Amino acid sequence: MLAPSSLEDRLIALRGGLGAVPGVRLAGVHAGIKPRKRDLAVVAFDRPHVCASVVTTNDVKAAPLLVSREHLAHAPAMRALVCNSGCANACTGERGERDARATARQAAALLGVDAHEVVVASTGVIGVPLPMELVGKGLERAVKALADGTEAALSAAEAIMTTDHVPKLEAYAFYDDGSKERRVVGGIAKGSGMIAPNLATMLAFVATDAACSRASLNAALKEAVEDTFNMISVDGDMSTNDCVYALARPGTGEATPGLRAALHAVCRELAIDMAKDGEGASKRLTVHVTGARDRAQARAVARAIVNSSLVKTALYGEDPNWGRIIAAAGSAKAGLVEDAWSIALAGQPWVSRGAVEVMSEFEAHSHLEEKSIEIGVDLGVGEAEATAWGCDLSLEYVRINAHYRT
Amino acid sequence: MLAPSSLEDRLIALRGGLGAVPGVRLAGVHAGIKPRKRDLAVVAFDRPHVCASVVTTNDVKAAPLLVSREHLAHAPAMRALVCNSGCANACTGERGERDARATARQAAALLGVDAHEVVVASTGVIGVPLPMELVGKGLERAVKALADGTEAALSAAEAIMTTDHVPKLEAYAFYDDGSKERRVVGGIAKGSGMIAPNLATMLAFVATDAACSRASLNAALKEAVEDTFNMISVDGDMSTNDCVYALARPGTGEATPGLRAALHAVCRELAIDMAKDGEGASKRLTVHVTGARDRAQARAVARAIVNSSLVKTALYGEDPNWGRIIAAAGSAKAGLVEDAWSIALAGQPWVSRGAVEVMSEFEAHSHLEEKSIEIGVDLGVGEAEATAWGCDLSLEYVRINAHYRT
Repeated sequence: MLAPSSLEDRLIALRGGLGAVPGVRLAGVHAGIKPRKRDLAVVAFDRPHVCASVVTTNDVKAAPLLVSREHLAHAPAMRALVCNSGCANACTGERGERDARATARQAAALLGVDAHEVVVASTGVIGVPLPMELVGKGLERAVKALADGTEAALSAAEAIMTTDHVPKLEAYAFYDDGSKERRVVGGIAKGSGMIAPNLATMLAFVATDAACSRASLNAALKEAVEDTFNMISVDGDMSTNDCVYALARPGTGEATPGLRAALHAVCRELAIDMAKDGEGASKRLTVHVTGARDRAQARAVARAIVNSSLVKTALYGEDPNWGRIIAAAGSAKAGLVEDAWSIALAGQPWVSRGAVEVMSEFEAHSHLEEKSIEIGVDLGVGEAEATAWGCDLSLEYVRINAHYRT
Repeated sequence: MLAPSSLEDRLIALRGGLGAVPGVRLAGVHAGIKPRKRDLAVVAFDRPHVCASVVTTNDVKAAPLLVSREHLAHAPAMRALVCNSGCANACTGERGERDARATARQAAALLGVDAHEVVVASTGVIGVPLPMELVGKGLERAVKALADGTEAALSAAEAIMTTDHVPKLEAYAFYDDGSKERRVVGGIAKGSGMIAPNLATMLAFVATDAACSRASLNAALKEAVEDTFNMISVDGDMSTNDCVYALARPGTGEATPGLRAALHAVCRELAIDMAKDGEGASKRLTVHVTGARDRAQARAVARAIVNSSLVKTALYGEDPNWGRIIAAAGSAKAGLVEDAWSIALAGQPWVSRGAVEVMSEFEAHSHLEEKSIEIGVDLGVGEAEATAWGCDLSLEYVRINAHYRT
């Protein structure tokens, strides 16, 4: 965790995710892009908010990402987010950009704001155009339904889901030093097929009623994403639609330590929610790497382990095959030192330095029967550490993805 | 293909793999490392051979790789290969190196050669020591059983299998220009869990009765591996035990074009055999990227597609989800140009420039019902091309890997 623990300890977990943030109203409706479920979310802000973003570095970028980038470059502050599921509006050419612009324009007209003040996002099947008539009618209903609070946030979080089983909402309140005012950071997110982190499809929208400058918000978001969303998916290798948007009230100052800690905590909890709800996941995996030479090494090793299909299938089979863990660690080519590393399972020594198995196979197996598995890898060469989150690779994952569109 | 097609056309496919190479005797026996199947192979050469190698760049290297590296540095030529399956002899510390040395020493004594003239290799479970008494007795029987020809080669190829369904043997004969003498390149290999190419576990042993210098053989092997084994697995991100050894009769000259073409063909066919026999594979995938700016771009895109779990699961489900193909191509971040790319399926246009679907979903689906799927991606920006081979990701893959050791 980058956030000093004293600050982290002073955060207050809230219910309601984005709905817990004062000045935010939201709604999720069924527009008809998907056959039955909610598929269109609108988030509206009572006043302009500065907006920071981290988006996919995939060569192929969906139309809404391109249009939102234009809007962020053009307008100093944002008033609304619109996100649909069921259709990614990616690889849809000029028509796709036209559709994304029309979506922003119509939402803006309904909300009485400028089209450039609307951020648009999409998730779902690639190569299919948005059904604009349905989107239009859905927007009208969504804007009418806008409300604050947990119920509205749940509807919005449901409307951005694809293969997610549960909506993902997280919020924390914080008090900054020297201030008696309570501020809130809240967010909603959708998760990803965890097996292929380089094609993760994730969206997250986070907002706060605290104020800071846009540059400072951008820096704070980048720092938080690095340790949270990027520790469940591999940096920069994201899908055509991945994006994280964070909004704050405009200010001239830096993001305060309290705001940064709360933003970090919301991103981390949303990331863990995604890992838990990985496609077909039956178990959750936390890998904590310690004793690394530096943070880059710790991060590389932690991610290599949560991303290894062989580790993930062994986890699914509850097979205490620690060789796969260390082979995955070595494949990161981050300079693993032989005879220096050791592995722990559920906080207990499993394989000590020099590859000596110190936990019985029986005990290791019984730990792996749990729903939540914690693997610790001490690289034994330094002080740096990092945590990555993942899940097992199950038969269900293959079933889901073999027939995603059908 | 790097090999000029005129040379490739003049190769003569032979049966028997390594067993087709004059001067090579081999055997595969059941030593008891695995409960039932053959698990120990010996390959003996009637005279010293120069030996080239490409081995894993994983930080964690198995003991036999380290010991063989010493031997290659010490002795100018090799007389034998010993390879066991069922135990990787990786993460086994000093004892592992001692065991690998003892294996080489005993094989050398039985064959009447120097211990440094023996290359050792292992594949199987990590972290478990070799049962040396069984290995010793197995070596005695294997050396007694040494023979030339297809039967012996089949036994040896079986003895190095792990989750492979079929032994992998390939051989080609060639005539060099200005020579009436026929030479042979032959090899055996074991394949890998194709879903996680960064943890592929592959071994290949190739030999020829043609002569060339060791430096030239090394260069020829490196070139061949780049286009073949490295196009089913990702460069340099290999398991603890991966290795390719190539042996030739000692000479002072360069590897001739005929030898290089035959070496390339043997490596390519062994690589394709591995892709076909990927763990749990129900379909074989060939991705041919054309119109690339340069070879690096073509290779990166081709590999990103065959390595994508989302492409592989869609293939398994026979779902014509071309969006996943292009998202995978974009994730390679090799500079995909929007509106320039097009996709073909089974040689027919599927999605043309500007993301226009020109093949009906019905037709695309019927192509995907075949056992062997060919996807062509034209990047539309240049002349370079590359081919990668893979397979689908099936329910069977997860079943195999969830209970690998049990």
